[in-house]
Amino acid sequence: MSREQRKALDTLFRTGPLEIGGDHLQQRAVFTRMLTSRPLPNDVILTPGSLGGVPVLEIGIDGVAPKGTLLWFHGGFYVLGSARTSAALASNVARRTGMKVISVDYRLAPEHPYPAALDDALAAYRAVLDGSGDPGPAGVAVVGESAGAGLVAALLVSAREHRLPMPAVGILFSPYADLTLTGASMTTKTAVDPSFSPEAIAVRAKDYVGAADASDPLISPVFADLRGLPPLLIQAGSNELLLDDAVRLAARAAADDVPVTLEVTPGVPHLFQAFAAMLEEGEAALRRVSDFLSAAFTSGASR
Amino acid sequence: MSREQRKALDTLFRTGPLEIGGDHLQQRAVFTRMLTSRPLPNDVILTPGSLGGVPVLEIGIDGVAPKGTLLWFHGGFYVLGSARTSAALASNVARRTGMKVISVDYRLAPEHPYPAALDDALAAYRAVLDGSGDPGPAGVAVVGESAGAGLVAALLVSAREHRLPMPAVGILFSPYADLTLTGASMTTKTAVDPSFSPEAIAVRAKDYVGAADASDPLISPVFADLRGLPPLLIQAGSNELLLDDAVRLAARAAADDVPVTLEVTPGVPHLFQAFAAMLEEGEAALRRVSDFLSAAFTSGASR
Repeated sequence: MSREQRKALDTLFRTGPLEIGGDHLQQRAVFTRMLTSRPLPNDVILTPGSLGGVPVLEIGIDGVAPKGTLLWFHGGFYVLGSARTSAALASNVARRTGMKVISVDYRLAPEHPYPAALDDALAAYRAVLDGSGDPGPAGVAVVGESAGAGLVAALLVSAREHRLPMPAVGILFSPYADLTLTGASMTTKTAVDPSFSPEAIAVRAKDYVGAADASDPLISPVFADLRGLPPLLIQAGSNELLLDDAVRLAARAAADDVPVTLEVTPGVPHLFQAFAAMLEEGEAALRRVSDFLSAAFTSGASR
Repeated sequence: MSREQRKALDTLFRTGPLEIGGDHLQQRAVFTRMLTSRPLPNDVILTPGSLGGVPVLEIGIDGVAPKGTLLWFHGGFYVLGSARTSAALASNVARRTGMKVISVDYRLAPEHPYPAALDDALAAYRAVLDGSGDPGPAGVAVVGESAGAGLVAALLVSAREHRLPMPAVGILFSPYADLTLTGASMTTKTAVDPSFSPEAIAVRAKDYVGAADASDPLISPVFADLRGLPPLLIQAGSNELLLDDAVRLAARAAADDVPVTLEVTPGVPHLFQAFAAMLEEGEAALRRVSDFLSAAFTSGASR
């Protein structure tokens, strides 16, 4: 069963129209179409807004009084995507956990290279902490997909430097966390990654790095000192050029005394969780995300 | 609360009588006394036996009809310990999961260097597979502590080479899986590891390696090709010289398309799960072991 599901997903990616390394305006449209073509369930409510001066999209489930906030950062190599392109996956997680999502429309490269995205992430995070009526940092999880997951790691490091309180947990789906592109999987997984090529990623990495240094820990948090970060759940597929970004981030976290869980699912691509409806492994991974969030929000005080 | 618990455990280790690198006969007695001084709960039933010609200790809970088998390998750097020294932790896991434990008394170094322990492990595993009345490999999990966890990894690689069926899952508590002792944590964690010194471990590593090569993948499975292994759960504390054995084994598994979960708990020592009664983090880790086993034994068929 799952073997066929994995094959179907692989084919979907290999024959898809996305060319990550192509013209960024064109690819933004393709990326958005890919991720928003299916209608959302009828009870998903999208509410555009602003948080700390940054545009956001609140994603909730009709009739659910949210128990906490998932501050969410979309993927797209810092060049593609928007708060809206996360809505399908984010609303799925919101439904499972009874939390609301605030999806952040951070500024994109190449128009706005580093540190624009991080500045926006930090501004949104500060605003969530300041939000009256919210349960404070203990009621907040930060969640990211791909570049958004790398951004989550950078945000947490930056928040620690600014002496802001930490959220309850961080959830990192297939993090893109080394813009020097030096992970071993960047070469060993080229044949099995159905979505990306190293060359295409390199184009997009340059867009975001701009005049900065790609090895800056706030650009490539696999090189960051992660001390003081909250518990992290990091998930990746083994059919990913970015597999080693996940593995090395987990290794770094472990060395730096951060509670960390790394889960690698074999034979599945980047962000397979977004395909939970057609893939058993995606469904299983989201169940574990849900369990992890539940455990964090019931036992956070004891850490 | 947990901070005090962790401190108490750290002190316990630092002031304890165990000198891993000392005379091996003396230290065997100390190790056994340390791990068996507390009486087991009254309903734990120990039944000595033999499996494939290897002495074993069956560990069950009175009145529980076991749902499956945990083939268990004790710790002690291949030099110390016995099937009995695992009984406290193993019976705890048996109770949580409703499974029975078969704890293997594999031969110890220096009297019996590599490959004696592995030969015994493989013989016991074959015999469990052949056991009539058992549910076959799908009803078996292999579990190891420290050297026993390294032995589990080696056993699985060896079983694959012998074309034996794989068990449902492997559970590795603080694996000792690099007898070349080259993990970064072997130097970065010396001050925080309350149990061991690199020098003491080196003494014991020589005992087991004997005339063989320490970098042999069946001695140091961090260097093994892990393709085809069943889902692995690897747990470690961040206050361990052996932390990087766990991290690198997980990285190797991920690269080799093995379903793998790595969980690192900060501020706790080697095999902290054995102290679940006095340490919140140990209790939480065993809950996750139990959940992992439950999930494996209900959904194993779909992999």
